[in-house]
Amino acid sequence: MTDIAFKKRVSVEEVEEGVTFQPKFDSNGLIPVITIEFETNEVLMHGYSNEEALRLTMSTKKAHYFSRSRRRIWKKGEKSGLFQNLKEIKIDDDQDCLIYYVNLEGKKASCHVGYKSCFYRKLISKNGKYDVDLEFTENEKIFDPKKVYGNLPNPTKL
Amino acid sequence: MTDIAFKKRVSVEEVEEGVTFQPKFDSNGLIPVITIEFETNEVLMHGYSNEEALRLTMSTKKAHYFSRSRRRIWKKGEKSGLFQNLKEIKIDDDQDCLIYYVNLEGKKASCHVGYKSCFYRKLISKNGKYDVDLEFTENEKIFDPKKVYGNLPNPTKL
Repeated sequence: MTDIAFKKRVSVEEVEEGVTFQPKFDSNGLIPVITIEFETNEVLMHGYSNEEALRLTMSTKKAHYFSRSRRRIWKKGEKSGLFQNLKEIKIDDDQDCLIYYVNLEGKKASCHVGYKSCFYRKLISKNGKYDVDLEFTENEKIFDPKKVYGNLPNPTKL
Repeated sequence: MTDIAFKKRVSVEEVEEGVTFQPKFDSNGLIPVITIEFETNEVLMHGYSNEEALRLTMSTKKAHYFSRSRRRIWKKGEKSGLFQNLKEIKIDDDQDCLIYYVNLEGKKASCHVGYKSCFYRKLISKNGKYDVDLEFTENEKIFDPKKVYGNLPNPTKL
């Protein structure tokens, strides 16, 4: 536990135009986090932090999240070794969303499926129209998730 | 209303490794959206779409969201003229988050406070430690929100 005390939100003007960090946590105590690779500006993942995960991220400079499926704080890399080293935090206008800018260690991958980014597919259009067809934007996996995670449950839920 | 029919999610393998768009909407019918400027890779905003907003985005190539405060579909730019022209859509591993890559019209701004990006502030550290101090990363506003929005209610809530 760290001693960073987030300030109470008292005015819209201060939230939008001020220089005091006043993050808003939703009714579940969570704030969405966009994670971006600092050195390339590539989006790596989208997750959630709660107050304690945010404090741990700020104090340890390792990205921490709140896992909604496991209902607990999750230090990214604790199982896989794919740690995210914090370089910068940004917050949006109404202070209800964060960006963690991070650099990656080792294999330089972030996604549990084995790709660098979780956003490894894009929609493709035919004759200028989108339907429901995707194509991969990463050609091959950086690591084999079976070797890294073994028999741990897959966090992806239907 | 458009006729794009999103497919039912039937297997984790298909969701993660398949080439069919199967977006997951949460218990409120929403999916988070990260909006990025296509030509600069800069994060502009974080919002939410519902099924209809996503279909409208795909069919009109103008970004649409679901406004949680106003409880309705929101065509970005409908009040301000700050439209977002869709260039690409990406989806993440478990297909519960989207990226809209867009280019901006006119003033090339996106944030209702007057800045280009909603993420116009970052945390600053002192002696290597973060506390609750922010600094602005955009030096001046691109437009005057009073002139653009008049007396419309501010979407930022405490």
